Amino acid sequence: MTTAEKIDVAVIGASGYAARELLRLLVGHPAARVTLATSRQGESARVEDLHPALRGRIRLACDPYDADVVALRAQTAFLALPHTASLAIVPELRRRGVRVIDLSADYRLKDPRVYADWYDHEHTDLAGLDEAVYGLPELGHEAIAASNLIANPGCYTSTSILALAPLIAADLIDRSEIIIDAKSGVSGAGRAPKLATLFSECNESLSAYSVGRHRHTPEIEQELTGVGRTRSPNAGPVSVIFTPHLVPMDRGIFATIYARPTRAVAEHDLFALYREFYGSSPFVRVVDGLPATKDSSGTNFFDVTPRVVRGRILLLASLDNLLKGAAGAAIQNFNLMHGLPEEMGLR
Amino acid sequence: MTTAEKIDVAVIGASGYAARELLRLLVGHPAARVTLATSRQGESARVEDLHPALRGRIRLACDPYDADVVALRAQTAFLALPHTASLAIVPELRRRGVRVIDLSADYRLKDPRVYADWYDHEHTDLAGLDEAVYGLPELGHEAIAASNLIANPGCYTSTSILALAPLIAADLIDRSEIIIDAKSGVSGAGRAPKLATLFSECNESLSAYSVGRHRHTPEIEQELTGVGRTRSPNAGPVSVIFTPHLVPMDRGIFATIYARPTRAVAEHDLFALYREFYGSSPFVRVVDGLPATKDSSGTNFFDVTPRVVRGRILLLASLDNLLKGAAGAAIQNFNLMHGLPEEMGLR
Amino acid sequence: MTTAEKIDVAVIGASGYAARELLRLLVGHPAARVTLATSRQGESARVEDLHPALRGRIRLACDPYDADVVALRAQTAFLALPHTASLAIVPELRRRGVRVIDLSADYRLKDPRVYADWYDHEHTDLAGLDEAVYGLPELGHEAIAASNLIANPGCYTSTSILALAPLIAADLIDRSEIIIDAKSGVSGAGRAPKLATLFSECNESLSAYSVGRHRHTPEIEQELTGVGRTRSPNAGPVSVIFTPHLVPMDRGIFATIYARPTRAVAEHDLFALYREFYGSSPFVRVVDGLPATKDSSGTNFFDVTPRVVRGRILLLASLDNLLKGAAGAAIQNFNLMHGLPEEMGLR
Amino acid sequence: MTTAEKIDVAVIGASGYAARELLRLLVGHPAARVTLATSRQGESARVEDLHPALRGRIRLACDPYDADVVALRAQTAFLALPHTASLAIVPELRRRGVRVIDLSADYRLKDPRVYADWYDHEHTDLAGLDEAVYGLPELGHEAIAASNLIANPGCYTSTSILALAPLIAADLIDRSEIIIDAKSGVSGAGRAPKLATLFSECNESLSAYSVGRHRHTPEIEQELTGVGRTRSPNAGPVSVIFTPHLVPMDRGIFATIYARPTRAVAEHDLFALYREFYGSSPFVRVVDGLPATKDSSGTNFFDVTPRVVRGRILLLASLDNLLKGAAGAAIQNFNLMHGLPEEMGLR
Repeated sequence: MTTAEKIDVAVIGASGYAARELLRLLVGHPAARVTLATSRQGESARVEDLHPALRGRIRLACDPYDADVVALRAQTAFLALPHTASLAIVPELRRRGVRVIDLSADYRLKDPRVYADWYDHEHTDLAGLDEAVYGLPELGHEAIAASNLIANPGCYTSTSILALAPLIAADLIDRSEIIIDAKSGVSGAGRAPKLATLFSECNESLSAYSVGRHRHTPEIEQELTGVGRTRSPNAGPVSVIFTPHLVPMDRGIFATIYARPTRAVAEHDLFALYREFYGSSPFVRVVDGLPATKDSSGTNFFDVTPRVVRGRILLLASLDNLLKGAAGAAIQNFNLMHGLPEEMGLR
Repeated sequence: MTTAEKIDVAVIGASGYAARELLRLLVGHPAARVTLATSRQGESARVEDLHPALRGRIRLACDPYDADVVALRAQTAFLALPHTASLAIVPELRRRGVRVIDLSADYRLKDPRVYADWYDHEHTDLAGLDEAVYGLPELGHEAIAASNLIANPGCYTSTSILALAPLIAADLIDRSEIIIDAKSGVSGAGRAPKLATLFSECNESLSAYSVGRHRHTPEIEQELTGVGRTRSPNAGPVSVIFTPHLVPMDRGIFATIYARPTRAVAEHDLFALYREFYGSSPFVRVVDGLPATKDSSGTNFFDVTPRVVRGRILLLASLDNLLKGAAGAAIQNFNLMHGLPEEMGLR
Repeated sequence: MTTAEKIDVAVIGASGYAARELLRLLVGHPAARVTLATSRQGESARVEDLHPALRGRIRLACDPYDADVVALRAQTAFLALPHTASLAIVPELRRRGVRVIDLSADYRLKDPRVYADWYDHEHTDLAGLDEAVYGLPELGHEAIAASNLIANPGCYTSTSILALAPLIAADLIDRSEIIIDAKSGVSGAGRAPKLATLFSECNESLSAYSVGRHRHTPEIEQELTGVGRTRSPNAGPVSVIFTPHLVPMDRGIFATIYARPTRAVAEHDLFALYREFYGSSPFVRVVDGLPATKDSSGTNFFDVTPRVVRGRILLLASLDNLLKGAAGAAIQNFNLMHGLPEEMGLR
Repeated sequence: MTTAEKIDVAVIGASGYAARELLRLLVGHPAARVTLATSRQGESARVEDLHPALRGRIRLACDPYDADVVALRAQTAFLALPHTASLAIVPELRRRGVRVIDLSADYRLKDPRVYADWYDHEHTDLAGLDEAVYGLPELGHEAIAASNLIANPGCYTSTSILALAPLIAADLIDRSEIIIDAKSGVSGAGRAPKLATLFSECNESLSAYSVGRHRHTPEIEQELTGVGRTRSPNAGPVSVIFTPHLVPMDRGIFATIYARPTRAVAEHDLFALYREFYGSSPFVRVVDGLPATKDSSGTNFFDVTPRVVRGRILLLASLDNLLKGAAGAAIQNFNLMHGLPEEMGLR
C-alpha cells in the first residue's frame, strides 16, 4: 500500500494512556497515517514529549483543536477526550464530513435521560446520539461498517458484554441475577494526577470503588438487553450488580461473573456454545484454563472461560483495558468502517 | 514483667512468611520469649539468616525438631508447617503437656471425612481433632481460653467468617445464596519456590485460581453454619461459592461478598448491627468508607463495611493475611490461652 | 508511665506520608501524646480520614494552624511541611517556648547562601538556622539532647552520611572521589498529586532524576565534611556525585556508593571499622550479606555492608525512607531531646 | 512474501521468558516460520501451554531435541538454553549445516580460560568459539551477516557496551575508571523457580547482587576493549566495576555509568558524538531527556543520554532486557544473517 492510499486520521486529545496506545497502533497500521494530533495539556508539544515511549516512532507536533483543520487533514477522527467533552466536537466534525470514533462515554447510552442521570450532564447532540453505533465489533460488524459515528465501548463494559453475550443470546441465564465482580489495573483511571492513583496509594493495595454506582453499569445493561432482544424481542431487561476494584497493576481487566442458569447446563456445553458464538471473532480466545490479565496484556485479545460451580455459571474473562478495552477496539472499528481486514494493525 | 515471668514458646517450622511475622511479633511481645525454633529448610541456620528482616532482633539458631526438646524448653508451641505435617507432631507435643497453636489446616475441619476429601489425606489424630478449638478470637473467647489445642484459622476464612457472622447470627440472609469473591496478595501462597508465584508470573497479572475447589470453602461453611446454629439450633447449613484470586501485591486479602437478604434491610441498620456485634472486638473496624488492603496492612485489624446495592447486601472486607489472617490471630489466641490482654503485643 | 507524665506533642502538616508514620509512631509511643494536628489539605478533617490506616488508633480532628494554640497544647512540635514553609513557623513557635523537630530541609544547610542557591528561596530565620542542630542521632547525641530546634535529615542524606561516616572519620577514602548511586521508593516524592508519581507512570519503570542537581547533595557534603573535620580540623571538603533514581516500590532507599581508598584496605578491616564505629548505635546493622530494602522496611534500622571490589570500596546501604529516613529519626531525636531511651517507641 | 519463501527456524529451549518473546516475534515476522520447538520442561506440551500469552498465535507442540530433526526442519536455530548447555548442541547443529543464534553466554567470551574462570566449566568447542561472532548488531553488521554462529549478547552487556562504545571509540575516557551501576527487572533472572525471584521476596525490595563478580563483567570488558582497539590497536584494556541490582519490575534494564573524561568535554559535544556514532542504527535513540525503562519496554529500542556532572561523564541508558537485551537482538542478528532489513519484524 503506497502512502497515497493511506487513510488520514486525527487523534483529538492525544495526552492520555488510551491515546498513546492509539497513536502507537496507528503508527504501525499499514493503512493509516496520523496527520494531526491535538492536546490541551500539550499545545504545540511534540507527541513524543507527551509520550516518550513514542520517540523515534512518530514526528508530529500537537495542534490546537480546530474543526476546519481536522476536516482538512483527516478523513476519520479518533476522540480520546474526557466524558462530556465530545458532545461539542462530534457535531461539528460530522457536519464537515469527518467520520468519528469516540472513545468517551458520550454516545454510548442510547437514552439521553439515562446519560443525564449517570453523567450529570444533559446530552446536547440527540441527532448524533440517534445515529451513533455502539462499537463492539464482535456483536455488530455490519452496523459498524455502515456507520460514521462510533461509540467505542468502555473497558469494563467490553469485558462484561463479551463474557455474557453468549449466555444471554442463548437465553440460558436469569437476566436479573447477574453479579459482575471486576478488577482493573490503574491505567483505567486515566492520566490526570489524582491522589487516588498515586503510586504510593495504589501499590500494595486493592480496594473496591464506586460500589453500586459505576457508570459502566447502564452501558452493560443496555447492550446485554439488546443482545437478549435480538433473539427474542420481548426478552426482559438485563440487570446487573457491578462492582469494580482497583488493582496494583498497570494494565488489564479481569471480570469474575456469577450467573444463575435457567436450566441445567454442563460445562462442556458452555464451551461448545462459546466456541460457536465466537467462531468468527479473531480476537476472542475461549480458553480451557483460567485467564490471567498478563496473558492478554499488550494484545487485542479477549480471553474467556466458563465454569459451572455448585449450580451457578461462573465466567472468568480478561482483556487489556487500553487495547481491546479501548484503543485496540477503536482500530477494529476503524478497519470495519473502512472496509479493511478486521485484524489489520492489531497482530 | 521480668524475664522469669515470661512464657517460653517454640516456633516449629520457622522458615515461612507467617512464621517470620510470628517471630517478629513474639520478639516484641512483653510476655513471651522464643526459646526454640525449628526448620527443615534451615537446620542449624540462624533465624536471622532465614529472615534477614529479623537481624538485630533475635539471636537464635534453628534446632532439629525433637518433641522432648520442645517440651523441655517451651510451654506453648506455634506450628507453622505445611498441611498434613502437623498431624504427626501435635499428638506427641500434647502428650508432653505442650499447648499448641497450629497454623495449618489440620485441625480446622471437625469432620475427618471432610478433611480427607479436601486434603486427600486421612486424619490420624481424631482425639486431637475432637478437642481442638477453632481459633477465631472474635467468635469464641471462652473456648479458646480453655483450650490447649487451637486450630488457627485460614486467611480467607477469617476474612469471610468475620464479614458474614453478623448477618448469619441475625438470620438476615439466605444461607444458600452467598458468593465470596476474594482477592489475595501472593504471600498467602507460601514461600516454597513455585513457577506460579515467581515475580515475573504474578507481577502485572491478576487471575482466579482453584475456582470451585479451594480448601477454605468447607472451613467457611462449617464455621458459619456453627454461627447460625448458635442462634437457632435447627438453622440450615451455610453454603458458599468461593472464588479466590491472586493479586500482584505482597500482603492483604480483600473479600467482596454478595448475599441476598431474607427481609428488607437498610444500610444504616446494617452498620448498627455490625457495630453492636463487634462492639467488644478491639481488632475489628466497622468502617464508613470502603476498606483497602493497604489500610490494614502490617496490622492486626479486620476492616469491614456493609452496603445495600439493588436489594442485595454487599460486604467489603479486608485484613493482612499474614497478621490478622495468620500470625496476629495466633498471638490473639496465645494471649487468650494464657490469660493475657487480647491486644498484648499486637498494637 | 501515667498519662500525666506524657509529653504533649503537635504534628504540623499532618497529611503527608512522613506525617502518617510519625502519627502512627507517636500513638504507640509510651511517653508521647498527640494533642494537636494541623493540615491545610484537611482543615477540620479527622486524622483517620486523611490516613485511613490510622482508624481505630487515633481520635483527633485537624485544627487550623495557630502558634498560640500550638504553644498552649504542645511542648514539642513536629513540622512536616513542604520546604520553605517551616521558615515562617519555626521562629514563632520557638518564641513561645515550643521545641521543634523540623522534617523539612529549611534548617539543614548551615550556610544560608547554599540554602538560597539550592532552594531558590532566601533564608529568613538566620538566628534559628544558627541554633539548629542537624538531627542525625548516630553522629550527634549530645548536641541533639541539648537542642530545641532539630533539622531532621533527608532520607537520601541519612543513608549516604551513615554509610560514609566511618570511612571519612577514619580518613580512609579520597574525599573528592565519591559516587553515590541512590535508589528510592516513590513515597519519598511526597503525597501531592503529580503526573510523575502516578501509579501508571512509575510502575514497571525505573529512571534517574535530578541528575547532578538533587538538593540532598549539599546536605551530604556539609555533614560529611563536618565528620572529616571532627577528626582533623583542616580536612578538605567532601564532594560527591549523587544520582537519585525512582524505583517502582513504595518504601525504601538503597544506596550503592563507590569510594577510592587512600591506602590499601581489606574487607575484614572495614567490617571491624564499621562495627566499632556503630557499636553503640542500636539502629545500625552492619550486615555480612547484602542489604535489601525489604529487610529494613517498616523498621528504624539502617543496614550497611562494605565491600572491596577491584581496589575500590563499595558500600551497600539501605533504610526505610519514611522511618529511619524521616519519622523514625524524628522520634529518635524526640527521645534524645527529652532524655528518654533512644529506642523508645521504635521497636 | 509467500510461505515458500519463508525461512524455517527452530527454537531450542522454548520454555523461558526470552524464548517466549522470541516465539512471539518470530510468529509475527514476515520472513520466518517456526517449524520446531523443543523444551525439556514441556516435552510434547503445546507452546501455548508453556506460554498462555501465545494462545491463538502459534500452533505447535514441543518435540524432544534431536539434531537430525532440527537439521531437517530448520535452516536457523535459536538456542535459548541455560549456560553450558549450548556447548554440546552447537557443534552438532553446525555440522549439519544449521546456522545458530545462541542466546546463552557459551560463545561470548573469546578466551576459553576466561570462560572457564567465570562459568566454572571448561569450554569444549574451541573451534566453534573461534568462529563465533559476537552479535551486537550496532557494532558489527558485516561480521554478523557473514557468520553462521552468533553469540547473542547478554542484557546487561548490551546496555553497557552500547552506552560506552562511542566514548571508548573516541578515546574520550579513562578506560580503567568506569563504574557501571546497573538495575534490572526480575525477568532477567530467568523462569526457573527460585526463592530469590518469588514475588514476595522481590516485591517492594531492591538490592544489589553478585557484587564484584557478575558474569557479564568480562563480556563488557572484552567487547569494549575491542572497540578501543578498532580505533587504536595498542589501546589498553577496558576495566569496569559492574554492580547489578534487582528491581521490583518485570522488564527493563537501566544503567547509570560514571566515567572520567581524559579531556574537557561539553555535554553538547557528547550529544553530537552519540548522534553521529549511532546515525545509522535504527534501534538506538539518543534522547534529550532522561530515559525510563518503561519508555523502551516492549520495544527493541536502546535509549541513552550523556551528561556532564562535576567533571565526570554520566551515561543513563535503558532497554528491554527480553527484547533489545535478548530476543529482539536475536531477530536483528537473524535479519542480518539472512540479508533481510535489520528492522523486519521488530517495529
